[in-house]
This record gives sequence, C-alpha cells and structure tokens, in this order.
Amino acid sequence: MPKQVDHRERRETIARALWRVVERRGATHLTMREVAQEAGISLGQLQHYFGSRAQMLSFAMDFAGEQSARRLGLAMGALGGRPHPRDVLRAMLVEQLPLHADARATSRMSAAYVLEALHDEEVHARARGGLLQGRATVEQLVRQAVADGQLAPDRDPEVETDLLLALTGFATLLELDVVGPDAVLTAVDRHLDRLFAAPGDVGGDVAGR
Amino acid sequence: MPKQVDHRERRETIARALWRVVERRGATHLTMREVAQEAGISLGQLQHYFGSRAQMLSFAMDFAGEQSARRLGLAMGALGGRPHPRDVLRAMLVEQLPLHADARATSRMSAAYVLEALHDEEVHARARGGLLQGRATVEQLVRQAVADGQLAPDRDPEVETDLLLALTGFATLLELDVVGPDAVLTAVDRHLDRLFAAPGDVGGDVAGR
Repeated sequence: MPKQVDHRERRETIARALWRVVERRGATHLTMREVAQEAGISLGQLQHYFGSRAQMLSFAMDFAGEQSARRLGLAMGALGGRPHPRDVLRAMLVEQLPLHADARATSRMSAAYVLEALHDEEVHARARGGLLQGRATVEQLVRQAVADGQLAPDRDPEVETDLLLALTGFATLLELDVVGPDAVLTAVDRHLDRLFAAPGDVGGDVAGR
Repeated sequence: MPKQVDHRERRETIARALWRVVERRGATHLTMREVAQEAGISLGQLQHYFGSRAQMLSFAMDFAGEQSARRLGLAMGALGGRPHPRDVLRAMLVEQLPLHADARATSRMSAAYVLEALHDEEVHARARGGLLQGRATVEQLVRQAVADGQLAPDRDPEVETDLLLALTGFATLLELDVVGPDAVLTAVDRHLDRLFAAPGDVGGDVAGR
C-alpha cells in the first residue's frame, strides 16, 4: 500500500515542520500557512491532510508521543530484563523533562498543546486522555511495587502517583533556567530514594554528603 | 498627582481586559487589537501605554503578581502572628495553583508568559527573575526551619526547595482535570508532612487513614 505509506510520511513531514516552527518561534503565533511554508507545500495541500489548526496540533502531539515512547523503549531496554520499578519510574519522568533537544521539542509542543486545550474541547479531551493514560501506568507501577514489597505497604498509591506526576513541574523550571539539569536530576533521585526507602528510614540526606 | 493615578488605573484596566481575553480565548491568538477592543479603547491608545505585545504581557504578569501577593498577604494574615513555616509554604504553594477563579487567571497568564519567554529574551529574563525571587523566598523559609529545628538538619535546603517548587506542576494536572483539587491538596499536605516529620518518622500514611 504505497499510497498509505506516502500519506503517513507526508503527515510526519508536516509534524516535523510544525515542531521546527514551534522550536524557532513558539506556538503562540503558529499558523497553518507558516507550517505549510516550512514543510515546502501549499496551504491547500496542508489542509488536505489537516482540516484545522487543532487537528494539525493533535497529530503533531500524537507523533511526539510516539517518538517519546520509542525513546523510553530504548531507555527501558538499557535497564535489562527485570528492571527495578524505581529505575522505570525514573526513566519515565526524565523522558518528560526538557533535558535534551528531542525531549525539549516535545515538552514545548506539549506546553502549547495544554494552553490550546484550555479553549478547545477536543484538544482538552485528547490531552487529558493522554495524561490519564500516563497516570494509570505510573499508578500500576506503584501498586505493583507495594505488592512486591519494594514500597512500604502504608504508602497510598494514588497520592504517591500524584506526587510523582507533579515532578513534571520541573519542565518549566528547566526551560526558564531557574533550576539546572543536575539539580533537577538530584531532586528526582532524592524523591525516588525516599519513596523506595525501607520503613523507618528517615529519608534525609546521606551522612557526609 | 491625579494624572499618574489615571495612568496607573488605565494600565490596570487594560491588564484586566487582557486577562479576560486570555481566560476566554487563550493567549495563543492574543493580539493587541483584541485587547484594545476588550478594554474599549483604540489600538493607538493601547500603544500609548504599551509599545509591544511583550511589554503588555509583562505588565499584565506584574499586575497578576501583585494581586497574587495581595491574596497571599491575606492568607498569611489569617495564619496569625508567628505562623509555622509548614503553613507559610502551604499558603505560598496553594496560591500558585488554579484552585479558584483569580488564581486560575494568573496561572493561565503565567503559562502563556512562559511559552512567550522561550522566544523572547526580555520576557525570559523577567519570568526567570520572578521565579528566582520566589525560589529564594522558599529556600530562606526552609533554611530558617532547619535553623529553628523544625526541619531535620540532614535535609538539603536546596533540594527541598526544588522539590517544593516542582509541586507547582500540579497546575497543569488541575487544568486538564487529571488530578482533582482535593487530591492535589492531599498530595501537597502529604509532601509537607513528610518534610516536617521528626527524624525516624517513616513519613508514610497515618495508620487507619
């Protein structure tokens, strides 16, 4: 089915053009005309693939999600056969943060998408759906860790999941250079160390650090 | 100096018009023309007060910051003479989250401002300055709590400050209805409880909760 492949390829080309525009000029002023120009096609051709700005943004977000999942898959592969849930959660969290160029593009796209979601029901539903799915994956990992005795049984999986998701708040602090990459990784590791600390462990700093 | 008062009032009227446009349609499509229309003045009059979109956004952010500080002042007043640092930190964090209409307007403005900052050096510097100031206030509170014995001495004030700031990541989760207001407050309280837990306390859930 070469035609379908072409169609998919063309949409990916457009999504990448959209990312470049977002990376360079921000999503604030993003227009379909500008994306068409960047992708080297006419506005009419672009509109053949996407009926609206929201549809174009949604596809670009889905595609970014696929790329992010692919990177996470590679990171998980590097962790070996039966990785510790702490390492899995760390890989998932770190992938959400703008710590390298690809993740930065995704993170900026995502921030633009959230703003768009506040005023577009369809975008809101899709963005919410993606985040709820991510939240469910994290909660499942936390519950399994409790069942496997890697997490203290008195931890509330829902609260722990929410606190882990909140760490994605580091994205803004990184983008605005308020907290540096090393400090963010230190803080994420400290949070995870405490989460997986044995009961009775104070969870403070290691002596002499 | 009635003229200066008028000037200030006019700028505040414009800032409030800008908020209404952001609340209604988002900052993505925000133009000076649209804000002028909402404020009931001509584009020329608006440009008399603000030379550029970035200047207008900066003033609206400064004004939002003042309003936010005023609300925080009221919350602090309600805490009494010598509030516990845990309660001060809670009030500061909660004020940053879109949990009521005014804070929601500020939070959305702020999200739009951060996106703008990624592509405008002046906005970046101002947004960064504001966040660094907030970070310094939180770190000072944490250091004082360690000095006063309210926080375990083995806690690293910089790491704890960064983890507290990351909790502002709940803003996006609230806006997209991924985590509800009650769950966010529970998670924030759990984090603060653990931060101020006595050494040796496991920081898990309260038995029988």
